[in-house]
Amino acid sequence: MQTEDGRLVIVSNRGPVTFSRSESGERTYSRGAGGVVTALNAVLRRSENAVWIASAQSEEDIKVSREPAPYEVEDLRVVLVEHDPEAYDLMYNQLANPLLWFVQHGLYDLPYAPILGDDTKWAWEEGYVPVNRNFAEAVADSVEGERSPVVLLHDYQLYMTPHFVRERLGPEAFVSLFVHIPWPEADYWRVLPRYIREGVLESLLQADVVAFHTRRYARDFTETVSQILGVEYDAEEGIVYHDGREVWVRAYPISIDPAEFEELSGSEAVLEQEELVKNLTGKLLLRVDRMDLSKNVVRGFQAYERMLERHPEMAGEVTFLALLQPSRGDVPEYARYAGAVRETVDEINERHGRGSWKPIELSMEDNFPRSVAAYKNYDSLLVNAVRDGMNLVAKEAAVVNERDGVLILSENAGAHEEIGEHALTVNPFDLDEQADAMYEALTMTGEERRRRARALRETVEANTIEDWVEAQMEDIAAYRERYLT
Amino acid sequence: MQTEDGRLVIVSNRGPVTFSRSESGERTYSRGAGGVVTALNAVLRRSENAVWIASAQSEEDIKVSREPAPYEVEDLRVVLVEHDPEAYDLMYNQLANPLLWFVQHGLYDLPYAPILGDDTKWAWEEGYVPVNRNFAEAVADSVEGERSPVVLLHDYQLYMTPHFVRERLGPEAFVSLFVHIPWPEADYWRVLPRYIREGVLESLLQADVVAFHTRRYARDFTETVSQILGVEYDAEEGIVYHDGREVWVRAYPISIDPAEFEELSGSEAVLEQEELVKNLTGKLLLRVDRMDLSKNVVRGFQAYERMLERHPEMAGEVTFLALLQPSRGDVPEYARYAGAVRETVDEINERHGRGSWKPIELSMEDNFPRSVAAYKNYDSLLVNAVRDGMNLVAKEAAVVNERDGVLILSENAGAHEEIGEHALTVNPFDLDEQADAMYEALTMTGEERRRRARALRETVEANTIEDWVEAQMEDIAAYRERYLT
Repeated sequence: MQTEDGRLVIVSNRGPVTFSRSESGERTYSRGAGGVVTALNAVLRRSENAVWIASAQSEEDIKVSREPAPYEVEDLRVVLVEHDPEAYDLMYNQLANPLLWFVQHGLYDLPYAPILGDDTKWAWEEGYVPVNRNFAEAVADSVEGERSPVVLLHDYQLYMTPHFVRERLGPEAFVSLFVHIPWPEADYWRVLPRYIREGVLESLLQADVVAFHTRRYARDFTETVSQILGVEYDAEEGIVYHDGREVWVRAYPISIDPAEFEELSGSEAVLEQEELVKNLTGKLLLRVDRMDLSKNVVRGFQAYERMLERHPEMAGEVTFLALLQPSRGDVPEYARYAGAVRETVDEINERHGRGSWKPIELSMEDNFPRSVAAYKNYDSLLVNAVRDGMNLVAKEAAVVNERDGVLILSENAGAHEEIGEHALTVNPFDLDEQADAMYEALTMTGEERRRRARALRETVEANTIEDWVEAQMEDIAAYRERYLT
Repeated sequence: MQTEDGRLVIVSNRGPVTFSRSESGERTYSRGAGGVVTALNAVLRRSENAVWIASAQSEEDIKVSREPAPYEVEDLRVVLVEHDPEAYDLMYNQLANPLLWFVQHGLYDLPYAPILGDDTKWAWEEGYVPVNRNFAEAVADSVEGERSPVVLLHDYQLYMTPHFVRERLGPEAFVSLFVHIPWPEADYWRVLPRYIREGVLESLLQADVVAFHTRRYARDFTETVSQILGVEYDAEEGIVYHDGREVWVRAYPISIDPAEFEELSGSEAVLEQEELVKNLTGKLLLRVDRMDLSKNVVRGFQAYERMLERHPEMAGEVTFLALLQPSRGDVPEYARYAGAVRETVDEINERHGRGSWKPIELSMEDNFPRSVAAYKNYDSLLVNAVRDGMNLVAKEAAVVNERDGVLILSENAGAHEEIGEHALTVNPFDLDEQADAMYEALTMTGEERRRRARALRETVEANTIEDWVEAQMEDIAAYRERYLT
């Protein structure tokens, strides 16, 4: 493994642990959840001496960040980076989450938004760039004395870190950046001001590998750098030529740990939640999502209503359970969207409910055991995102579902490239197509359901999180062998 | 010329003339204006026996359509096609103008719109497709007995016509379709339901040449058909391989007739309007646009306000004249946008006006002589479109302006590919960049202004509407020689 000739450093904005003080004054910590953090844990397990660098988030995190690094927690060696609070706020709340997230998911109403200007520049120069420089400093400190460290940078908060890391560590370091959200086509990338548009691309090309979840994003990235920076590339080989170096552009579809979900599905917490799920009327149509504009929640309900209107015999025969984890509620666009979601649910329940049957059960809380309980019991799972980097819900649910549930999958979810052929594919903008897919899923023969569910599960199990890590490690070794030794 | 071996047929939804009845009961007509109609007139002048096919729009048009065709008007031979009114309404008001226009300009707020479904399918099957079949019938009737006619189809109302024309006329006919609006990237094209998404592309590949205003649209089209239909192509040569045929994908930047504008600029009507224009206070910042969501009118005013705030010395030294031709006022999105425009103007005039000086003069009417009068007198012209197929205003204005006016040009206007280097380029989403460009334009030295204005005018005059026609005619001849003889 390449970790023999270089220390492995993972960097992500959000880390694997957050520290706090207990009432008795002792330092405690909680381990982070979420797909990417879980995936990066799998990377760390591969290397004895690895370090995970992340932003200090809590007050106690800041104390940890000031102590001699790294801090050892269970199997982890963690380095927390203290940022200037104002710079961090600008990076996070002015640039990464509103601007980059919206551009990369294509969520703007372009005749009206965004309104860019000097405040964008300020957030870039005084927020995004210094925070990224700060990450690079922490990387440099962590690998001091190493001849050829391996630096794995993660996601859209860190786009400028490759530039600063390369500046500090020189050509011998292996550097990659993994983009976990969609990569847009060049025209949408051009919404950004020139200094971000070009600055990010120049920085990413300082990495040795730029990685995405799908071949489509990898191709769109290559096309974007070609159009905007005018660099040459070999589309077949996935190589961009820049400054006398070769940058590999790769797709590694992220996945899950099936064993973890199988274990979870038998846990006490999940079994408890199953009572509630099993008490719902009729067949179970499920969605599990963060409350995000990209998830297409409103159209999902509208499509369900059309299905009920066309098939009156379905009244009382199905319940649509929507488990929506609150997200960014302080951002006006998100608050407005959450309002539209609630309103739509109320209207549909009002119009179509009868007796004790509520057509839609809406839960807006963060309750992971309930999600897993619902995974086990759905007859059909709706993932109709406007755009989605991967969508791990589709994969998690597939491995624990016990009812041969049918997946309805947006062609704009990254997961579609891998598992779309076993799902009912929908255009997220077409309500009637989604309504038809729901009806088809809920009335499909047992045999067809079994065939699809089995194929889906096998496909997910054939590319687990371990395989995801392995594929990257192999490419790191191949890259180092070709260029860095 | 290829017209020697085949009759030339032009087809566009809107024709060169509209007929009506005078009060005395006589048939009269008015000739259409607008860039594309003017351009197609230039094509017709090249051919003795040519026919122009268009939709009957007025009651009198329908009478003309029922008489033996073609109808001769001045130098034109016109064939009007009567469509079923409901089908035409579906094509025009449900599909072409809301859906295709919005998709191709990227104007949707995707988390909320569009809402596609069975009504989209209805509009397609009962509107767009039959209207296009109708056009193809008219083409077939017009060229009966010809061995190898030349059929030039125009714009986004006619995307299915190549399919039906090819079906009727076989491989010997030369068929081209010119797209006068932007071509989007593949992801945005995928917003459309599959039957439109694939149906349009399959039909367009029945043409021999698919033409655009810019190389960027041509490339995006090629990429779109490659991704969605999986066809092979040669990007260098601009050739798509489909069904054993070679389809040329070409860029012919449309232009104007400079002589026409020079003549116009001395006309009585224009001279009259110049009084008004010259009476405005200070330097003249101008915009001339249809009132369309794609034109970015609101951000233009907001940028102007920022310029006034940063440079208080500009108060009373400049007037922003906005000549906005009303458009699609019955469409809610347009009405809402026009409201936002008026509100923004009122607020800025309220906040910044003093004495007799009104910072912004807004005119919402259709007054072409006034536009030309303003073209002659601007110190700076703002064209900051979110997206624009070409934008002929920039070209028209450049050839008649008498004040070495500086063009501020959106990088997303098609014209930017040709004349951007002589303009101040702006990102249409960046208010401060636009504010800075306005200030720079209004305070630029005379020498720099002269240099830019001259280069701009020379560039426009080096590719007139005649050159645009010539380039297409040469390619038609080359294509026929290579494949059809």
